[in-house]
Amino acid sequence: MGKSNKTTGAGLISREDLALVTDLYELTMAQSYFSLSMNARASFELYIRDLPPVRNYLVSAGLKDTLDDISSLRFKRRAISYLKSLNLFTDEFLDFLGKFRFRGDVYAVDEGRVVFAGEPLLRVEGSLIEAQLLETMVMNNMSFQTMIASKSRRIVDSAAGRAVVDFSPRRDQGYEAALKAARASYIGGFSATSNVLAGKRLGISVTGTMAHSYVLSFNREIDAFRAFSHDYPDNSVLLIDTYDIEEGCLNAVRVAKEMEEHDKRLKGVRIDSGDLSREAGKVREILDRNRLGYVKIVLSGNLDEYKISRLIKKGTPVDSFGVGTAMGTSSDAPNLNAAYKLVQLEQEGMQRAVMKFSLGKANLPGRKQIFRQYRKGRFVADILGLEGESIEGEALLEKYMHKGRIIRKSPPLEEIRKNLEKEMGRMPSYIRGLGKSRAGTTQLSPALLKSIRTLKRRWTK
Amino acid sequence: MGKSNKTTGAGLISREDLALVTDLYELTMAQSYFSLSMNARASFELYIRDLPPVRNYLVSAGLKDTLDDISSLRFKRRAISYLKSLNLFTDEFLDFLGKFRFRGDVYAVDEGRVVFAGEPLLRVEGSLIEAQLLETMVMNNMSFQTMIASKSRRIVDSAAGRAVVDFSPRRDQGYEAALKAARASYIGGFSATSNVLAGKRLGISVTGTMAHSYVLSFNREIDAFRAFSHDYPDNSVLLIDTYDIEEGCLNAVRVAKEMEEHDKRLKGVRIDSGDLSREAGKVREILDRNRLGYVKIVLSGNLDEYKISRLIKKGTPVDSFGVGTAMGTSSDAPNLNAAYKLVQLEQEGMQRAVMKFSLGKANLPGRKQIFRQYRKGRFVADILGLEGESIEGEALLEKYMHKGRIIRKSPPLEEIRKNLEKEMGRMPSYIRGLGKSRAGTTQLSPALLKSIRTLKRRWTK
Repeated sequence: MGKSNKTTGAGLISREDLALVTDLYELTMAQSYFSLSMNARASFELYIRDLPPVRNYLVSAGLKDTLDDISSLRFKRRAISYLKSLNLFTDEFLDFLGKFRFRGDVYAVDEGRVVFAGEPLLRVEGSLIEAQLLETMVMNNMSFQTMIASKSRRIVDSAAGRAVVDFSPRRDQGYEAALKAARASYIGGFSATSNVLAGKRLGISVTGTMAHSYVLSFNREIDAFRAFSHDYPDNSVLLIDTYDIEEGCLNAVRVAKEMEEHDKRLKGVRIDSGDLSREAGKVREILDRNRLGYVKIVLSGNLDEYKISRLIKKGTPVDSFGVGTAMGTSSDAPNLNAAYKLVQLEQEGMQRAVMKFSLGKANLPGRKQIFRQYRKGRFVADILGLEGESIEGEALLEKYMHKGRIIRKSPPLEEIRKNLEKEMGRMPSYIRGLGKSRAGTTQLSPALLKSIRTLKRRWTK
Repeated sequence: MGKSNKTTGAGLISREDLALVTDLYELTMAQSYFSLSMNARASFELYIRDLPPVRNYLVSAGLKDTLDDISSLRFKRRAISYLKSLNLFTDEFLDFLGKFRFRGDVYAVDEGRVVFAGEPLLRVEGSLIEAQLLETMVMNNMSFQTMIASKSRRIVDSAAGRAVVDFSPRRDQGYEAALKAARASYIGGFSATSNVLAGKRLGISVTGTMAHSYVLSFNREIDAFRAFSHDYPDNSVLLIDTYDIEEGCLNAVRVAKEMEEHDKRLKGVRIDSGDLSREAGKVREILDRNRLGYVKIVLSGNLDEYKISRLIKKGTPVDSFGVGTAMGTSSDAPNLNAAYKLVQLEQEGMQRAVMKFSLGKANLPGRKQIFRQYRKGRFVADILGLEGESIEGEALLEKYMHKGRIIRKSPPLEEIRKNLEKEMGRMPSYIRGLGKSRAGTTQLSPALLKSIRTLKRRWTK
């Protein structure tokens, strides 16, 4: 502390900083365990307590980053010396932190899987201290990417086969959020992103059109269109709503015809304002009348799955959508009620399932497994049971980390995306739909129910 | 591209990456300007188009980071070589980018000032190319921190003098978002944060209590309380709702009494679930009956300004609040309708004000200034006029950067926070209140109105 008289921006986060991206209490609790030599094996599970009212399912995402961050977590000299300055920690504990690295196990659901409320997306097993220390980081990362992948999938479904592109970087909650949103939306089925760094780092196709400022920088709109299509003869999508959409479209037509003389084709036009369905209809009509059926129409401007769905229902002639704000901030459900809870703890040599009973925040005890059941290739229900319980169905939690080492490779992003596409095809329409459907697809197994009863009895005694 | 068969997480953002945290079209437009030698002096302004329905004002924040990021923006070798791989850019333009650094001017409103819809928070003046290139970065950073500072101020006001602590790191949209939320909420008046990195980097006080998992890790609740208060005799806030709140409180009382025997005082108890008002009432009663009037009550659990305001109105005995999700994601208004628009451009040696007319997205032309008017020390109205126009009032936009160099020091965070506190004191209650108030505190100046009329005439001709 004592730095508050300096002018500081928040700045960026380096790998070295990561150990301190944590709530203080993770460290004070850890020290308390340390001082009492309470370091028995513990299992923590991460899950989403309940679905937002406007979600029927979630799409798991964020695991790869979470595993990378867990395995690289170190307390470096500067972090330790800051902690020392707080006068809360003993030298012994700070020494321990200086040597800390995660040596436990991690089980998780693959990225790009459909999951429901109460189902563990990830389980950390290790010493009580190491498992506790990860809480803030794991929750932050898993719940954000899962939230965005879930929102994105709804948007992709609403577009009924048309391409959707991530236009969110300017509206996301930080630069890192923009990158994670690009990744999670790609998992959700977006086709491309405007985020150049996401292209570089993740191999996602990058695309873009032009801004109104570009059109305004020229004396006449058509001069802007000519200049741009000259520079990008194969990649020009002209923004036609800076002044008047119909006039803008006629200017685009003139430029497209000039391009044809050089054997080039205008790729598309974008409309970003107004009554998109009506405007797109007029624009399609003008383009077709001028034998420019190949020129695509891109729509953007505060779009989300509800608006896109209405556009599609109206039969709007549209080839692709640019979606920013609503996706990047999951605007109708801007947070998930995530929890990272102790579910099992070794005591006196015994593995003991634990649960808390706080009103509305109780958790399910024990190391769990999700058993996904299909009939004729279609999803029927998930059974949430105990790890090792013999239940029919596909077990979703896989072991990803063993004694601190990543032992299961995350599939390539492309494959994660395809897996989700396939899984969505097996989901019934009452889950896929935008409207709120009947809840309760996840059932608790006999062994899990028995464990809850036992713990409740013990607690009410 | 072509990396999509590799498994990659989003990862962290280094300073070197920053140049590519941009929409592709900023770069394609820039190259087009470059190829046409269109690099006249241009002015872009960043503003929030309209207030969310549940906001009467905004609190400016994010400037310090924005200035740091602008002045350090460089395209390094790896960024250039990725751009080259896209086959969109000429070698000449990539050379230009390789040497790029921002050499323009920046005007901005200080952080921690109250601002309204349509008012420029920041103006970038420079060559068309350099000003355009900053768009995505500037919008992302300014609008996020402004959104959080605005939300935080509402929460602080609702707490009516009680301390509010940032509990958001686990729920924020990334690690960087958590750090920026800690900073912006401190500007908004939060007292402390649980985010350890924010403590280290920004000098904000860090604080914390304990998690339910801690209590669950012991055989009995009281054992957990004893252990924690033994390790933190001066800083123990005991979480009393893991099992039963009243019983938890009685256990806290026993521990407090044991501490008194060693001349120590239990700092507080925290309630995180249930009917907080009723539970706090019961707990206060038990504490007072046991002569523990000094033990404070901390409330948490999905709190926001509406819930806090209701708790206060009911006379709930509470000393401080922990607020996470609602603040860190600005849950009732999870994005701001920000715009970064070209407002003036030199053409044929003349500075020409420009504006676009897209339906619902028109912008105000020209380099503007906000003139804040007071009467008897109380805020009356803002006049949005043109820079250089002679209007009474405090001019809010200050020059922060000259030819790429930061020339005005951002005030220390502590001072920014105090400035806002002072300014809020001058705001009328219809602006401060949580309910939606009459809009329209910002009036347009005669010169600005005249400029709009002139441009409209020119456009409709």
